[in-house]
Amino acid sequence: MDLLEAMNWRYAAKKMNGQTVPAEKLETILEAIRLSASSMGIQPYNILVIDNAELKGKIHELACPQPQVVESSHLLVFASWTNVDEAQIEAYIQLIANTRGVPADSLAPFAGAIKGGLLTKSPDERAIWAARQAYIALGSGLIAAATEQVDATPMEGFNAAALDEILNLPAKGLHSVSLLALGYRDAEKDFLSKAVKVRRPRKDLFIELA
Amino acid sequence: MDLLEAMNWRYAAKKMNGQTVPAEKLETILEAIRLSASSMGIQPYNILVIDNAELKGKIHELACPQPQVVESSHLLVFASWTNVDEAQIEAYIQLIANTRGVPADSLAPFAGAIKGGLLTKSPDERAIWAARQAYIALGSGLIAAATEQVDATPMEGFNAAALDEILNLPAKGLHSVSLLALGYRDAEKDFLSKAVKVRRPRKDLFIELA
Repeated sequence: MDLLEAMNWRYAAKKMNGQTVPAEKLETILEAIRLSASSMGIQPYNILVIDNAELKGKIHELACPQPQVVESSHLLVFASWTNVDEAQIEAYIQLIANTRGVPADSLAPFAGAIKGGLLTKSPDERAIWAARQAYIALGSGLIAAATEQVDATPMEGFNAAALDEILNLPAKGLHSVSLLALGYRDAEKDFLSKAVKVRRPRKDLFIELA
Repeated sequence: MDLLEAMNWRYAAKKMNGQTVPAEKLETILEAIRLSASSMGIQPYNILVIDNAELKGKIHELACPQPQVVESSHLLVFASWTNVDEAQIEAYIQLIANTRGVPADSLAPFAGAIKGGLLTKSPDERAIWAARQAYIALGSGLIAAATEQVDATPMEGFNAAALDEILNLPAKGLHSVSLLALGYRDAEKDFLSKAVKVRRPRKDLFIELA
């Protein structure tokens, strides 16, 4: 499906019908998330892929409770790194070295640039930076789902601290920043399924300096 | 072009060749940005579209100086709202009412939910929230460019306060969060143009809870 057509088709379904997203479509969505751009390529986040009714039920209670959490096929939790330390940067450098078949030492200037850019930030600044990167990946997931004709509802309305606890995220150095329910819209029960898409007009959103 | 194929093709070009992106392709990229999802649909950001060599030159000096700023066809500046106030929420409600042909009064519950969600945040929290939304749009721009076979280099390495000043962003209630250079890779001069893409493996990035 054409990109703009897919983006016009998508909306944040408020009711889903419980239908399962086929494994192949799920993998395409996850692969788009995995291929997402991030600052310096570090991908400072993890994504939890939840396909467990009981766990979804617990998360539902912490999420306002929005029905898509339990009506989804799969619930993704985007969780960004709470810190970026020297060891994580070194692991990333090693990943580049292994992937490209070059000695890690040859990447020392890049490693230095990353450390200079990140380790001089305060812990709060690093966490804010990491969460922003996760949102690029979230955007990729939304688009990939739409091109696969899978509905995807991003949700920020949840108790992040409580969710972190039940998913044991602090021990993993992670903090939840957004949910993404993947599934299929219940067109009958969702009053928004037939609503006209609302977006700011081009002339209001863009400022042209020619 | 297939989405995953496009995402594999793309990388953050470090050198561009100055070639102009045709108007039609630029419009497709801007339309994808415009159609991006955002929390509650507010789109709390603006995007500056810069096609002016002198202005690009000034921005170049504030951006490390990364050559893509001046070698790009168009330079986009993603600038998020520094605040979200009641008037902006009311304007959004009016936009929904106009787009869908319903009375604004009928949207009072939704307006209340937005105000409850946003106006109770601190100004800093609102700014952090707005910047995250801009990153979803940045992600859409990256994908749309790739599907159009246009190179797109996101850049966070710039003096945001100085850039805000020369673009008069504070007076507009905006703060620059990312640059996006659109153009064409200079495959000869960019040592990364032939490098293997590095991404964290599926098993490291995703945590499956089945």
